[in-house]
Amino acid sequence: MADVPSMDALVALLRRLPGIGPRSAQRISYELLVRKRDLMPQLAAAFQQAHAVVRFCERCNNLSEAPLCAVCRSEHRDRSILCVVESPADLRAIEDTGVFVGEFFVLMGHLSPLDGIGPEALHIDRLSARLGETDLREVIFATNPTLEGEATAQFLAGLVPDGITISRIARGVPVGGELEYVDRSTLGRALHGRRLLDE
Amino acid sequence: MADVPSMDALVALLRRLPGIGPRSAQRISYELLVRKRDLMPQLAAAFQQAHAVVRFCERCNNLSEAPLCAVCRSEHRDRSILCVVESPADLRAIEDTGVFVGEFFVLMGHLSPLDGIGPEALHIDRLSARLGETDLREVIFATNPTLEGEATAQFLAGLVPDGITISRIARGVPVGGELEYVDRSTLGRALHGRRLLDE
Ligand SMILES: [Zn+2]
Ligand SMILES: [Zn+2]
Repeated sequence: MADVPSMDALVALLRRLPGIGPRSAQRISYELLVRKRDLMPQLAAAFQQAHAVVRFCERCNNLSEAPLCAVCRSEHRDRSILCVVESPADLRAIEDTGVFVGEFFVLMGHLSPLDGIGPEALHIDRLSARLGETDLREVIFATNPTLEGEATAQFLAGLVPDGITISRIARGVPVGGELEYVDRSTLGRALHGRRLLDE
Repeated sequence: MADVPSMDALVALLRRLPGIGPRSAQRISYELLVRKRDLMPQLAAAFQQAHAVVRFCERCNNLSEAPLCAVCRSEHRDRSILCVVESPADLRAIEDTGVFVGEFFVLMGHLSPLDGIGPEALHIDRLSARLGETDLREVIFATNPTLEGEATAQFLAGLVPDGITISRIARGVPVGGELEYVDRSTLGRALHGRRLLDE
């Protein structure tokens, strides 16, 4: 509204968040200004607090409020297995499965030469140092099953010292998915990577 | 994440906004914490500023940063026509059409006896005062075409002094809509409210 610049400013900022379009940003602003005014100072404080205290783990780049994240601080993780992911959100998705007991390294992206994202952007120095730790036995590349994710895994595999097992997360039909709705490329890979039933 | 309480707090608050579910709240938080950290202090400031300066127009309840909103301050509005709407968002939708030159009154809701929302919640005193202004000639009820909106319009019509025209926004087929996809009730009303072609 020409008349309410503070609301316009809020709408403009909200539109920069993922998944929030112009109508959604306006709807949120009206809801806050008309019905949920108390939420505004709470949101302001939450954004300030998160900005001030959330940082990146010095060992793996995961989000953390301490120098080392919960995974890296834990005494119950298997340091011989390292899982390399693109983002803290991917790390969390794997943690949420509850089946992985190793440690992580978060690349904070993937190689994308067209966007000018080369190896130097992916914390390669620290990954190399981590790959050199003596008790490491296996590296799992869990980058996204995209062109960039595959290329990134391929490139990084070249940095892994001899004698360390290199693996890639399995691709296939999503559990619970219906074949009818699985895309052709996924289905093709699932057929190609088939396993014997008694395995 | 058990380890990042500031992020958990942010996710919990974002979920209370309209149209933002748990996955969306998490996605927004990761995006901000990983890639758009500079947006966080900007958002905090925008929420604080909007909370501090945006209030309700003393005459019509519209959102405003001044005691009177832009519509009520304007010298180019026709004070003989009053349009009664449920919310500031509805007011804006009508303003955006560019076809209405009168003034507004925002009820800030609708009658909803089941939710305990009676006439006293709808600023009836101020509406009555507005309805008593000497130059008023027509009141348009533009409450929502819902059961509650209709009942609210019916009830408020009883407060309009004799001699003032009372109207209701037309219901019918949305302009640009295809009949095939218009709901039965709307289509029925559109047939019932048909107009001669040369009108
Ligand atoms: Zn860590
Ligand atoms: Zn006003």
